[in-house]
Parts: sequence; structure tokens; C-alpha cells
Amino acid sequence: MIITTIKELRAYLDTQRKSGKTIGLVPTMGFLHEGHLSLIRRAKAENHIVVMSDFVNPTQFAPNEDFESYPRNIEHDEQLATDAGADVIFYPSVEEMYPNGSSTFVEAEGDITKVLCGASRPSHFKGVTTVVAMLFNIVQPQKAYFGQKDAQQAAVLIKMATDLHMNIELIVCPIVREEDGLAMSSRNTYLSANERAQAVILNQALVKAKTIFENGEHNVPNLIKTITDKITEMPLADIDYVSIYEYPSLKTIETVKEKALAAVAVRFGKTRLIDNIILEK
Amino acid sequence: MIITTIKELRAYLDTQRKSGKTIGLVPTMGFLHEGHLSLIRRAKAENHIVVMSDFVNPTQFAPNEDFESYPRNIEHDEQLATDAGADVIFYPSVEEMYPNGSSTFVEAEGDITKVLCGASRPSHFKGVTTVVAMLFNIVQPQKAYFGQKDAQQAAVLIKMATDLHMNIELIVCPIVREEDGLAMSSRNTYLSANERAQAVILNQALVKAKTIFENGEHNVPNLIKTITDKITEMPLADIDYVSIYEYPSLKTIETVKEKALAAVAVRFGKTRLIDNIILEK
Repeated sequence: MIITTIKELRAYLDTQRKSGKTIGLVPTMGFLHEGHLSLIRRAKAENHIVVMSDFVNPTQFAPNEDFESYPRNIEHDEQLATDAGADVIFYPSVEEMYPNGSSTFVEAEGDITKVLCGASRPSHFKGVTTVVAMLFNIVQPQKAYFGQKDAQQAAVLIKMATDLHMNIELIVCPIVREEDGLAMSSRNTYLSANERAQAVILNQALVKAKTIFENGEHNVPNLIKTITDKITEMPLADIDYVSIYEYPSLKTIETVKEKALAAVAVRFGKTRLIDNIILEK
Repeated sequence: MIITTIKELRAYLDTQRKSGKTIGLVPTMGFLHEGHLSLIRRAKAENHIVVMSDFVNPTQFAPNEDFESYPRNIEHDEQLATDAGADVIFYPSVEEMYPNGSSTFVEAEGDITKVLCGASRPSHFKGVTTVVAMLFNIVQPQKAYFGQKDAQQAAVLIKMATDLHMNIELIVCPIVREEDGLAMSSRNTYLSANERAQAVILNQALVKAKTIFENGEHNVPNLIKTITDKITEMPLADIDYVSIYEYPSLKTIETVKEKALAAVAVRFGKTRLIDNIILEK
């Protein structure tokens, strides 16, 4: 069932809540793949009612980014989400979420939003925290589900929910990969056949770093060099960043002490892909 | 009953909610006067349970302002609030609301936070919207009550709640005044006897403007001049601003069309007082 207005969604959810149902929220930008579906299945296993939001959020795109061309397919999304267990697909217009005059934002300040994707996309996380805060206020779920693929996004949202004392449990689910290891992403659809073939290097480089890490290499610059060298084997790969930070604080480290995030962003032509892996002693 | 931790407050409110009780929130910075008590009484008339928060919020004070010296008296507050109908006084520490590392803020951008008090207190409303968003997340009330004395604050908070789709009704209650017309304020306690006597001019000037407005003077500069001239009759009055804006948008106007806010901020010695009146055709 697709619902497009906040008013209708609230009316539906109020009825559910009054009969004691719990609500799980899966925020997405649509163009669903197996990664999203894994979140919906998890949410359905843990809640009576699952709301999947399907909204390409303009405030998390910079003017030069792919907001207009971001892939959309609501009919396909509705079928996939419903089959995976979603009770409602919340599919609002931009005007419904950001009516004329809307100018209130939620922002996690500090290093956590300035490193990694925050460095090359400076206003991105402000848009993400704002739209997720809106969705939390609209749906008022007990639990909300996010993918580890967007590891920094998950860390930023957990910080937002903690700092603002939101009464919602945020659950981060594992990355879902294609058979050859490429992390699933709606943006994979942009890749040419050549780019698609070479994009597998992201996962391969991260797995290699994890292997040497487990064999005793805990020095961050050495681990970064291993990943960088591996990715540059592919001629079409144009590195945006290769970084390792303490996780989930995203603080700078020289040596991995307990738990770290190794994360990469790499362009193949016009397509910017991200991937990551957790290094844990 | 005083509760100091978020965890205990949530446990108490969850129990109330499960038995079908509605919750009203009255956010205050304590040092209660009749203005606050009028909000509590209204909240008690409209909700089963009333939570009054009593928290001097550091993020809405600039470093040069009176955060440290702001008057506090929790024992007196507890008695007054309870007598007026509050079921819980939520009295958290700064550390409870802003634990180490907290750095997420809610901000209403645009003119509404830049005019009036926003001009002389540029970070003030960012602190207000952040702490009120936190209190909304903690208490999850159906209704929240604010005073018209802080007219701009009320307009900003209504904007925040609207923009972020918060499922809470904000209710703005009339200014409560001393017998001679001075708007009640915790900061009135700072005034010397001389200052206190002269401070009555704020209300007198606003009432004079309202009278000539009702007699047909709708020109904003003329109305502002009337208020300014009246206030400057008092030698201790040091005007911060005398302004008239469309209400509640706080847009600039040259002529009052339908509804406007006439607002003043005036220093008497070190004490900055605000007052306002609505001009409505």
C-alpha cells in the first residue's frame, strides 16, 4: 500500500498503535535492491507494522550532484517492498516533506560529519539528519533500520538520536553484496559494463586489508596504502578517499586499537561508489 | 515530584501512557512566577499529566550573558508548580541533557531567527530549538505550552514543529502582568527599585501604540516612533530594539495589513527586559 501524505500515514499508524502494534521504519531513497529488502525483512521480523519510506531527499544532494538523475521506479519498489514484508510504502512529494518556507534543519556538528563523505559532500549529512528526523517525527517508530553500507551515515544518525534523546532504537544491518563482492547500491545502475567489472576492486581491496590486519598489521598508513595500491590496479578507478577511522566515533587514529572503519569512495566515470569494512581485534 | 533523569522520566511516562493518559509539557527555566503558573494551570485543564521542565539551558546563552547568574530556586519552584497542578518537575543536570560529546543542534534558519532578539543574540534561538526538540523527544507530549511574552520564541518553535513535522500541538498563552502592567519575568528580580519603577514604561508604550493603531495609525515607522518616544521618557531605559513585524511570519512590513507584533527589548542597568503586544485589525 502506497501512502503519499503525512496526514493519511498518521491516521493509519494511529489506528495500528491503538491496537498495540509496534512500528518499524526503513528509510530509503527507493530503487530497491537486495540490501534494502534485507532491512525490510529484518524490520518485519521485529515489528508488527513496517513502514518503508521511499523518498529521494533533495537536501542531501549538492547542486552539482545527481538528485535529478537519481534512479526512481516506484511501481517496482512497491512490488519488491510488499513482497519483503512492508505494510506501507510512504512515498511523499518534495512539497509534502518540505512545504514552501520550510527552513528548519537538524545538524550533527563536529568531526563525525566532516571526515569521509562529509569532506567531499559538505552539506550532505545535514540533509540526511534533517530528513530522518522528519521521518522519525512522522512515523514515530520503535525501531529504525539502516545499512552498514552507509557506515558514516549510520554513525551520524546514531549520534543524532543519542544527542537529541530520541526514543527510537537504530539498528544497523550488514552490507549485502553481489556474487562477485560489489556492495549493492542503487547507483550501480549507472555503471558501464567495463566500470561494473572493475568496481569489484573496492571489496577486494577492503578484504585484503582485513586479511593483513588479522595477520597483525595494525598501522593505519600501511593499511591505507594496501587498499590504495590495490584499487589503483584498476585503470578506471578514480579515488575520492581511502580512510580508516576509529569506529563508531570516526576519530583519527594512527594504529587500530579495538575497532576501526576502513572506508573508500571511488569514482568510475561519473559514478561515485562507496564501500567499507570493519576491522576489529 | 522531582525527576532528574531521562530514564526515570520515561519509565514514569510510559506507565501513564499505557493507561491512556495524555501528557502536557510546560518547558521553563525555573524561578517560577505567575506567568509560568498560568501555563501549568492551562496544561492541567487540558491533559491528564503535566510535566514541567525546569532547566536553565546553557546553549541559549552567549558567553557574555547571564547563564551563571540566572536566578534559580528549585525548592520554591517545586512547591509552586505542584500547587498549580504539575505532576512532575523534570529537573535534569546540564550533563544529563548535554552529555560529553553532544553536538547535534536543531536550527530554524531564515529571517524569523535573525530579527528582534535574534539580532542581538545570534545563537540564542538555536539553543532554544535544540533544547525544546530534546524535551519533546524525552516527554513526547500531545501538547506543549509557551508564553506570548516570548513571542518570537513561540513563533520560532511553531516553525520548528511545523517544518520538522512534529506531532505535537503548541499552545501560546497570554502574557501575565504585574498590577502596574510590567510583564512577569524571572529577570525582573535583577531590577533595582528605581529600575523597577521605570520598567513599567515598556507596557505603557506598547499600550499607547495599540491605542493609536486602533484609532487608525497603521504606518509602522510612526508606530515605532510613538513607542520609542514614550520609552525614552525614562532616563534609565536603554533601548535594544523597538520593532514591528508581520505576525507570526516576522516579515518586514511598512504598514500593518492584518496582524503584527510590536516588540521591544530595553536594558535597565545590566537587565535586559522584553515585552510585546499584538496589533490586529
